[in-house]
Amino acid sequence: MPRAHHPIFDPAERELTDGGFAREEVRLANRNPGTLLETLRYDVTPPGLHYLLIHFDVPHVASAADWTLDIGGLVERPLKLTLDEIKRCAHRTLRVTLECAGNGRAAMSPRPRGQPWHHEAVGTAEWTGTPLRTLLERVGLAANARDVVFYGRDRGFNGGIEHDYARSLSPEQALGEDVLLAWAMNGAPLLPQHGFPLRLILPGWYGMASVKWLDRIEVIDRPFDGYQQVGTYIYRERADEPGVPITTMRAKSLMVPPGIPDMYSRQRLVEFGRVELFGRAWSGAGVPIAKVEVAVNGRWHEAVLDPEAGRYAWRGWRFEWQATPGEYELICRATDSNGERQPLEPRFDRGGFGNNAAQRVQVTVR
Amino acid sequence: MPRAHHPIFDPAERELTDGGFAREEVRLANRNPGTLLETLRYDVTPPGLHYLLIHFDVPHVASAADWTLDIGGLVERPLKLTLDEIKRCAHRTLRVTLECAGNGRAAMSPRPRGQPWHHEAVGTAEWTGTPLRTLLERVGLAANARDVVFYGRDRGFNGGIEHDYARSLSPEQALGEDVLLAWAMNGAPLLPQHGFPLRLILPGWYGMASVKWLDRIEVIDRPFDGYQQVGTYIYRERADEPGVPITTMRAKSLMVPPGIPDMYSRQRLVEFGRVELFGRAWSGAGVPIAKVEVAVNGRWHEAVLDPEAGRYAWRGWRFEWQATPGEYELICRATDSNGERQPLEPRFDRGGFGNNAAQRVQVTVR
Repeated sequence: MPRAHHPIFDPAERELTDGGFAREEVRLANRNPGTLLETLRYDVTPPGLHYLLIHFDVPHVASAADWTLDIGGLVERPLKLTLDEIKRCAHRTLRVTLECAGNGRAAMSPRPRGQPWHHEAVGTAEWTGTPLRTLLERVGLAANARDVVFYGRDRGFNGGIEHDYARSLSPEQALGEDVLLAWAMNGAPLLPQHGFPLRLILPGWYGMASVKWLDRIEVIDRPFDGYQQVGTYIYRERADEPGVPITTMRAKSLMVPPGIPDMYSRQRLVEFGRVELFGRAWSGAGVPIAKVEVAVNGRWHEAVLDPEAGRYAWRGWRFEWQATPGEYELICRATDSNGERQPLEPRFDRGGFGNNAAQRVQVTVR
Repeated sequence: MPRAHHPIFDPAERELTDGGFAREEVRLANRNPGTLLETLRYDVTPPGLHYLLIHFDVPHVASAADWTLDIGGLVERPLKLTLDEIKRCAHRTLRVTLECAGNGRAAMSPRPRGQPWHHEAVGTAEWTGTPLRTLLERVGLAANARDVVFYGRDRGFNGGIEHDYARSLSPEQALGEDVLLAWAMNGAPLLPQHGFPLRLILPGWYGMASVKWLDRIEVIDRPFDGYQQVGTYIYRERADEPGVPITTMRAKSLMVPPGIPDMYSRQRLVEFGRVELFGRAWSGAGVPIAKVEVAVNGRWHEAVLDPEAGRYAWRGWRFEWQATPGEYELICRATDSNGERQPLEPRFDRGGFGNNAAQRVQVTVR
């Protein structure tokens, strides 16, 4: 490939977008990595490339031997379990795509405070663990059980409130067959940043439900009112509305940006000829992807879907593009089997949640 | 720990710093993760927590079997080697702390364009590989060899110039006994994002020298003039000065921020009493750390150093702080055995390189 000069790849000729991002947002982005879009090629995200959203600090758990899980509250037989005791139960492995509920926040206008994701807060892993149901059946939920609360070991302030990270499920949700207490990721013990030694995995839901560094489970007789349950992770357009609690992932697709990038702007240069566009698509709660479409300068084409790889895993898609020299905008959008299709523009949400607007990639073909 | 309300942890009472960061900077921060400062506790950085600075895209190398290394140019016996052939040579394992030359760029004023690191672009790993010297002696450098050039498989635009990522060393530097062609990191094959299947490791230098996805080595009779060698990674205060090429790391120290954080601002809350402050310190080219000092609201104390853990690895340090309620600024700074001490304020550099100014952590003790 010869050296080339092209004005959009010359920094002197390129205009900077001043996003007006705050230092706090950049610090969060420095801490919380997204996946690298080019590594969407891997069916299972390699270690270190799965997105992370760490609310507080990663707790330091030196050894699983120092750790136990308490299950208490409104249960008939409270339990304290070691990791070995949990691992001795029957276990399952599920391939699960997880996405942060705040994915796409950086594209919203006005932009809510928080981790400024563009598109990259996603990853797929094989999680191995004991079905939560096994342990809940062992302890026996009391008749007046209303919520099952999962507490992590990570503690800090959010929204002005000090708390251990905690989320709840209804008994019905908690007894779902695919909810796991996971101790292994891709066949290895959990890494510190993914919840060592034990975490919840709630397939099909946005990531906030899959509580990491699980410390205790408490069954209560009222709706859980912790900050992560009622103070955030609620879809709201206005501050004064009750809103809708966030649960399962919305349909979304991403493409591996074709060609080669400019280091700073991430603009792409593609050689003319046959280009195979490749990407991934997923939706929530085990709803299959029905269709992925690709637009080339506004003209839509249907992509070919790879075989499914499990109820909760993303699905590959491909589209062969005959690229001729010029400037292009490529867009991909998925439609799931419920008929939910990605919008072309972000829907506003006060917390910056659930933005599944279609990805747009600008490329120059030479 | 009771719930607490404190004004600096209440978002309604906190002022936002508008950093005026560009969208391009945030996109780079989304791609390139730093380490999580709380995980500085690990002697060797766990997988996925070592910083990454990926200039272009991670090349897709499906299998090491598809890959070879060419060594050519001004050599007596050019070679093409498979990974297995390289692994059959004698090998060594070195524990090496690597830091990005742009670490600290986000604190510079004016802020140069690029990945907006604060302090987190660092990590320590055990790299296993064949000494580069072994292979260079096998091919035999010609008498007129002036530079040894290392080309990666990653290609893109930087500074308006299209190129494969490439860096060079003088024959003397390349024949140094600790320069490795590394195929394993922490006992496992390289991850895609760390250079699979083979990369250069130049202990003691900033990370730009340790070329990833190594594709070919070419010996030339003139100074290498590639963009990554002469267009960037040069210390310069003014555009019109020749500047000084960047080589080894400057002395630096970091602390694990004590207490618990606010999710968005990363402000810290610490309980009063005995607090062990812990951190890491390192310098370049195998120069030992001589001293780490900690300032508590401007008053300096000397920290206790952990034993050394190898010539090129960071060193732990500890300081016992008797914390009483109030507002504090904690600072740490290292001095190396050459007498180089971290400055308290960033030195300006046009490219945002080599900012080893001391880390400052704001904490509230209650």
